[in-house]
Amino acid sequence: MKVMFDRVALIGIGLIGSSISHGCRRGGLAGSIVGSARTPATVETAMRLGLIEQGFVTAAEAVEDADLVILCTPVGLCGPIAKEIARSLKPGAILTDVGSVKASIVKDVSPHVPQGVHFVPGHPIAGTEQSGPEAGFAELFDGRWCILTPEPHTDAAAVEKLKKFWEALGSKVEIMTPEHHDLVLAITSHVPHLIAYNIVNTAAHLERVTDSEVIKFSAGGFRDFTRIAASDPIMWRDVFLNNKEAVLDMLGRFTEDLTMLQRAIRFGDGETLHRLFTEARAIRRNIIQAGQDIAAPDFGRTKGPAPATPPSAKRK
Amino acid sequence: MKVMFDRVALIGIGLIGSSISHGCRRGGLAGSIVGSARTPATVETAMRLGLIEQGFVTAAEAVEDADLVILCTPVGLCGPIAKEIARSLKPGAILTDVGSVKASIVKDVSPHVPQGVHFVPGHPIAGTEQSGPEAGFAELFDGRWCILTPEPHTDAAAVEKLKKFWEALGSKVEIMTPEHHDLVLAITSHVPHLIAYNIVNTAAHLERVTDSEVIKFSAGGFRDFTRIAASDPIMWRDVFLNNKEAVLDMLGRFTEDLTMLQRAIRFGDGETLHRLFTEARAIRRNIIQAGQDIAAPDFGRTKGPAPATPPSAKRK
Repeated sequence: MKVMFDRVALIGIGLIGSSISHGCRRGGLAGSIVGSARTPATVETAMRLGLIEQGFVTAAEAVEDADLVILCTPVGLCGPIAKEIARSLKPGAILTDVGSVKASIVKDVSPHVPQGVHFVPGHPIAGTEQSGPEAGFAELFDGRWCILTPEPHTDAAAVEKLKKFWEALGSKVEIMTPEHHDLVLAITSHVPHLIAYNIVNTAAHLERVTDSEVIKFSAGGFRDFTRIAASDPIMWRDVFLNNKEAVLDMLGRFTEDLTMLQRAIRFGDGETLHRLFTEARAIRRNIIQAGQDIAAPDFGRTKGPAPATPPSAKRK
Repeated sequence: MKVMFDRVALIGIGLIGSSISHGCRRGGLAGSIVGSARTPATVETAMRLGLIEQGFVTAAEAVEDADLVILCTPVGLCGPIAKEIARSLKPGAILTDVGSVKASIVKDVSPHVPQGVHFVPGHPIAGTEQSGPEAGFAELFDGRWCILTPEPHTDAAAVEKLKKFWEALGSKVEIMTPEHHDLVLAITSHVPHLIAYNIVNTAAHLERVTDSEVIKFSAGGFRDFTRIAASDPIMWRDVFLNNKEAVLDMLGRFTEDLTMLQRAIRFGDGETLHRLFTEARAIRRNIIQAGQDIAAPDFGRTKGPAPATPPSAKRK
């Protein structure tokens, strides 16, 4: 594939920033990749891993002469960084981000974007529970969706170019308003993370069940939740601080539904339980059909179902 | 390994029953394996897959002359089946089960167990979201825990023999009271399943977010919950009907903790959020260290982190 941007600047080089770098290398999408990070150690690691050709201490230095600037920091830092880099951005450059909330980023970043720079907020719906520059890999975005939330007045060519960039990284791209994004992600990502964090903490503070028991017997379902509860605490703090309304809205519905289930358990209403459990089954099939999860049982963690042929063991 | 039981009878041949059969074949633990199932189709499939040498329409027929009888049905059926097979059980036989709740099974089954038959309730903490005789595989129990909950008066030799059997299937074995089992599993398995079912249903009934959006953007965390929400609805209905008290107790704590998180979000208390999210991280490390989950990011679903060596892509 041909180079899409002569110079890409990554502001923040964690899981997402490093994965973008790997993806750019894989596709030959960037003439050069430069970057900055909050700590010199991260810049050093990024240089050592070949994620960036040049590392900078400040974001303002990193964005100079870049055609594409990608903010890959926790959501709460996007506003301050936008302010810091405003005067260093190259006219005609595209400025984007990868934050898990969009309306607050638009609010925080837009006022600082100079005339002639195209701000197109973005969010790749991809990740793992790992963090840092060593966690990234080129395949992270393959087959996943990336949401862009440009304003109506945003330059159409810039939006199109960023869309093509994400497609070249392996993603499918959807465009929607920041507000709708925040509502959708509240239910598909933010509330799931919140309840995962919550049950892990509930389990850790029981008097009659030890931590050791929780760990030993976690294969009953609990361990699934611990994966997303191992995600970066600062990133997730910022998500909840910046998508308050939609999260509280969805959380209210979750609690309402849970109260109904609780009541069904209390009164032994097996019919309601069975009906709701059966309904929940269908959505997984659809997710697998849509290529958004693998079909292998148990996420492929265990060795999977036995072959359909009879076992070779001797029978009596 | 030498044969531990001349004749094993599986009452119910779903994921667990079929996995026990595969495990017995692998280890050469059973002289012969016979079984019964609710439908003739399941018996036929089990025969075709070589899971059993002989299939029966009734449980009473299947248990005749068996040295080990394993009830592998939903929890609610254990009592009725115990009543049905009582007069057919061989003196000296061991009767066990694999149900996810224990106190109610002890209550339902014990009254029917004839003198000279040793009832040792059991629960392998292992499974996948798949059901049926074709879902089983020999490795399911490898490295997982199996809990046995014998009464104080139960024959010690029978308990020891069943313990050895589960160890031969690859499990580690712990012994505790039925009541403690039910409390531990309420937090490590039952409540996690309940909240997974619940969020899937919440997501399916939103007016402003479509099902298609929930599916497309599920990689943000939601899809993890859909796996356990795809588990067998009848099995799980019976779990909640039969472990009401412990589930309601743990659910009360979960809701209490969630309310605190909700309040922290509402008032923008980032410090509390960050502290709780950080605490939750540690438990996953412990689960991985204990061998109860794999260390690969994202359950190994994606291709994992890039190698530590710099990428080979040409740089400018």
